[in-house]
Amino acid sequence: MAGFNVHSVLVTGTNQGIGLELIKQFLEKSNPPKWVFATCQDPEGAQELQNLASRHPNLVIVALEVTDPASIKATAARVEEHLKGSGLNLLINNAAIVRPTTLETETLEDMSLVYTTNVTGPLLMSQAFLPLLKKAAQGSSQKGLSCSKAAIVNISSEGGSIQNIAFWHLGQGISYRCSKAALNMLTKCQSLVYGNDGLLSVAVHPGWVQTDMGNSGSLQAPLTVDASVRGILNVLATLSETDNGTFVDWEGKVLPW
Amino acid sequence: MAGFNVHSVLVTGTNQGIGLELIKQFLEKSNPPKWVFATCQDPEGAQELQNLASRHPNLVIVALEVTDPASIKATAARVEEHLKGSGLNLLINNAAIVRPTTLETETLEDMSLVYTTNVTGPLLMSQAFLPLLKKAAQGSSQKGLSCSKAAIVNISSEGGSIQNIAFWHLGQGISYRCSKAALNMLTKCQSLVYGNDGLLSVAVHPGWVQTDMGNSGSLQAPLTVDASVRGILNVLATLSETDNGTFVDWEGKVLPW
Repeated sequence: MAGFNVHSVLVTGTNQGIGLELIKQFLEKSNPPKWVFATCQDPEGAQELQNLASRHPNLVIVALEVTDPASIKATAARVEEHLKGSGLNLLINNAAIVRPTTLETETLEDMSLVYTTNVTGPLLMSQAFLPLLKKAAQGSSQKGLSCSKAAIVNISSEGGSIQNIAFWHLGQGISYRCSKAALNMLTKCQSLVYGNDGLLSVAVHPGWVQTDMGNSGSLQAPLTVDASVRGILNVLATLSETDNGTFVDWEGKVLPW
Repeated sequence: MAGFNVHSVLVTGTNQGIGLELIKQFLEKSNPPKWVFATCQDPEGAQELQNLASRHPNLVIVALEVTDPASIKATAARVEEHLKGSGLNLLINNAAIVRPTTLETETLEDMSLVYTTNVTGPLLMSQAFLPLLKKAAQGSSQKGLSCSKAAIVNISSEGGSIQNIAFWHLGQGISYRCSKAALNMLTKCQSLVYGNDGLLSVAVHPGWVQTDMGNSGSLQAPLTVDASVRGILNVLATLSETDNGTFVDWEGKVLPW
């Protein structure tokens, strides 16, 4: 982690779960970012984030609806103001939803909402923050690609691996699986295009984690949120040019598409 | 092809291109299906289909908008009437759209429309026609899975292979690539669920074909529509249980996800 020094990071979907824990662990680093931007739909209802902000003046909470292009643009403008001419090193697209659907029960409405949140959201966020990410890359003296220079991290899921179809015993979740396969495709495309701009793009599977999303009925996920996020941050610290456009898990293992 | 005897087949998106050619070649088989259902958005404007119908009484043209659940249900009811108690052997989800977008120009509207047409459409079609497909499987004396027994064929694209990112030189087409990766995921999920009902599910890449979609500016696709569809029908004839849930091209080659 010694080499993982980010000046600024933005994480979406931070009111709970993995997003909230990412914010906590960034703030608790021995060398914390100068700016940590935590976005969520309803900042006033996000009590834990508010508590963190009262202790950490480098935490900025911003309201964001990732399915609304106007909200995304407003967030980018607000973040740019805070950065005062600096770039953004790290964009972590974490906000996502899941529906307990099957092939039989899936609807057009669920397919659309899950896709817009889990795929179009990260696409539009990356578009809106590209100027700030490019600025971070251009302002860095580091060679190659890395998460401390400039990166887009899309939180995906092994449930979106067409090869593995992981977690099938937890449910079919068709709209969710389709959205994560598409997010992996988006990540690969971003790596091909944005690599030329000095940005690293990667899809990360956080493991089967003890969150509202991970726990399913009587089945308890094996991984604590704390361990998952510690793993993710360790992995992000090690990523370089050769990892651009890959799909890795919280332990750094490369997953098949 | 001797073993490829379908009593009934339905193809979507048949006003032109690969869909139209599939209909032609099914009708011209030495052992044509008893029923060939050709769906398109605007039957009155589909002159070639109308000409075919005047010569082939086993061709039924049905208006269908694959993004409209009510239209899908109405089509299923109409097909069921024609089949008079028989099942449907083969559903070919071919209707698809592409937008010449890039990471920079992609919009929420394009992402949504392409996904709904290319992924949600095939999902809802399969839901609506499942009873007829199951009936065909139950009424068949064949062991295992095959396209002449009961199958869902999703026309995908190697452009949706996250591993290969084929045809990148033709354009980024982000919404299209994301939709085809998601369609491949849908196909895999369908194979896991519907395999138990006696249905084969497969994703097929038709090649880079000389259609309105395949030809791009000054770049001419290498494969004729005729050759692509002849290849696809040959491949469908050979598929069995071991091919369930795979991604194959018009020559039968298995493609990576």
